[in-house]
Amino acid sequence: MTSFGFSLLGNDGGARRGRLTTAHGSVETPTFMAVGTAGTVKGLTPEMVARTGTSIVLGNTYHLMLRPGAERVARLGGLHRFMQWPGPILTDSGGYQVMSLAGLRKLSEAGVEFRSHLDGSRHMLSPERSTEIQHLLDATITMAFDECTPFPATEEVAEQSMALSMRWAERSRAAFVPRPGYGQFGIVQGSVYPELRSRSVAALTAIGFEGYAVGGLAVGEPQEEMFRILEHTTPQLPTDRPRYLMGVGKPGDLVGAVARGIDMFDCVIPTRSGRTGQAFTRQGPLNIRNARYAEDTRPLDPDCQCPVCAGGFSRAYLHHLVKAEEMLGPMLLTWHNLSYYQDLMAAMRSAIDAGAFSAFQARFAADQSRGIDP
Amino acid sequence: MTSFGFSLLGNDGGARRGRLTTAHGSVETPTFMAVGTAGTVKGLTPEMVARTGTSIVLGNTYHLMLRPGAERVARLGGLHRFMQWPGPILTDSGGYQVMSLAGLRKLSEAGVEFRSHLDGSRHMLSPERSTEIQHLLDATITMAFDECTPFPATEEVAEQSMALSMRWAERSRAAFVPRPGYGQFGIVQGSVYPELRSRSVAALTAIGFEGYAVGGLAVGEPQEEMFRILEHTTPQLPTDRPRYLMGVGKPGDLVGAVARGIDMFDCVIPTRSGRTGQAFTRQGPLNIRNARYAEDTRPLDPDCQCPVCAGGFSRAYLHHLVKAEEMLGPMLLTWHNLSYYQDLMAAMRSAIDAGAFSAFQARFAADQSRGIDP
Repeated sequence: MTSFGFSLLGNDGGARRGRLTTAHGSVETPTFMAVGTAGTVKGLTPEMVARTGTSIVLGNTYHLMLRPGAERVARLGGLHRFMQWPGPILTDSGGYQVMSLAGLRKLSEAGVEFRSHLDGSRHMLSPERSTEIQHLLDATITMAFDECTPFPATEEVAEQSMALSMRWAERSRAAFVPRPGYGQFGIVQGSVYPELRSRSVAALTAIGFEGYAVGGLAVGEPQEEMFRILEHTTPQLPTDRPRYLMGVGKPGDLVGAVARGIDMFDCVIPTRSGRTGQAFTRQGPLNIRNARYAEDTRPLDPDCQCPVCAGGFSRAYLHHLVKAEEMLGPMLLTWHNLSYYQDLMAAMRSAIDAGAFSAFQARFAADQSRGIDP
Repeated sequence: MTSFGFSLLGNDGGARRGRLTTAHGSVETPTFMAVGTAGTVKGLTPEMVARTGTSIVLGNTYHLMLRPGAERVARLGGLHRFMQWPGPILTDSGGYQVMSLAGLRKLSEAGVEFRSHLDGSRHMLSPERSTEIQHLLDATITMAFDECTPFPATEEVAEQSMALSMRWAERSRAAFVPRPGYGQFGIVQGSVYPELRSRSVAALTAIGFEGYAVGGLAVGEPQEEMFRILEHTTPQLPTDRPRYLMGVGKPGDLVGAVARGIDMFDCVIPTRSGRTGQAFTRQGPLNIRNARYAEDTRPLDPDCQCPVCAGGFSRAYLHHLVKAEEMLGPMLLTWHNLSYYQDLMAAMRSAIDAGAFSAFQARFAADQSRGIDP
């Protein structure tokens, strides 16, 4: 059996090149995880996902526990078999989603009681139940159950929230059933307060996890604030464990976070944007609904080799599909966007390998500010 | 340049094996054309369409003239390039759709005035304009503009309607610009009246087309009535031209119509059913929304080798996707259904080649009546 592990292959300044080894295959880092909320990356077959260069996907505990249900997924052979994604899967803890259910949830030391957004039925998520659900789903990487501290929060509120998350991290670790090739990540909290972030890192590393996530960012704070917290936090994390920045982000966020020592990301932006008509390109984003694209025969991004751009689909065609509300519009835009994200990650990995990450950053920023030709 | 042609390769009773040769490639017949209404087979990339075994797709003049517009498609290089389908494309004449716009259209000898269902704008379709639009779209096969006679219709109404369609067929032929590898089909009308069908065939063959369609069927009449009209009509059509039964049908309709000398079909059933949760199988249809499939680990059709069934997607997973309203549900069901239809066509072609079409028909009927195992 493969044991779960992370090899730091090299670094260029703060940027790290690594390899994650799991029961379901290995992952070159820095990596971007495609979000597959309810057991599917929306609008793509697993084969299409794989063709973007994605090697690990994320599943949502909250959505899957409600439908189709964790015990059902377990009876069906686990999430990999269920959704036909044989590669690694990371599941979140459900904490973030249930905290977002304003008015429908009740927080206590034990965990969170909440009502389903689907049918109003009552449920409970706790460190123990969240960890059990992720086990039932057969997650390659299980996340500790935590409270995502709201933003903004006073230092007092942030301190109490972080302390609760650390007690929950201990209970999550105790509930985790170790298996070869599987791992569990703790989540650093502490909002924008460096002292709290340091205490959170100390608490988690004392428990000991296979990886560490930075949580509670990308919740509305400015990008500089996020970068400042990363610069404070990542140097305190063990170098031999992967670091995952949760819910981030836009292309520029990824580049800046890699420069600050992050190895893993997940975000709905490339997939959700694809469903609303936004495409990412090497010259910045474009909205394909814009009438200027109605007779534009160019691909979304002339420098892109993805199946959409290299496949000959023009901006004019994508404009038509989106205006006509044809399913193929979101499918192709999502496919391109996810490919764009994975190309960006691959370019960063190459730049780190070549010791040229600073030059990459400068070129990336210049390209993005060029803007799309009319 | 390839010239447009049809070779009759053989027959088995009334069933015919043929090959259509066009500027955009050849098509083995009997064939099923996937419906790509607005420049896309809903929910499938062109590559996915090709993997079902589809070799010719259908586009709708009515939808495309309104959005994105025929002149625009022409400026963008034609429909093949626009939708990235390099193979043959047949376009309908728009007649059927505009006749369906009850209250929004006005019929005269000249043609049909109508208002767009999208924005209420006024348009005119005539034999000349329909033929011009199909030329602008770069249709491999252009259909004559006709009136699809309503059902039921008295013999007097059916006679007037057919006579109008025959005058329009002459005008359509006069407006058609011949190009090597491109063809135009006339459409036999006459409702359920054999004498009218015979007069329609005589009128069309006197004009002379590259192929002949049987229209005005599958409009609500019983299957026996449709078969009776086919038995009367197809023997009068020239054997060296392809015969296309428009808008048909369910699997059993296809088998019965091939037995009666039809070479080409189109129908929204496999694609539309895929979007509503119905799957076709060798044991008959199933509705994946049914709770009995929630933990059914079998593929939709255990005897199917399509990318969905052979790809390991279970009924349980498809049930989940459809219940959760995930795009991937309709995508996979459509992919399977279109594959099922193309497998059925391929099986019929093999049976005709082997001189075993009667045995095939008997086995098909027995299989379909077996029903899906609970």
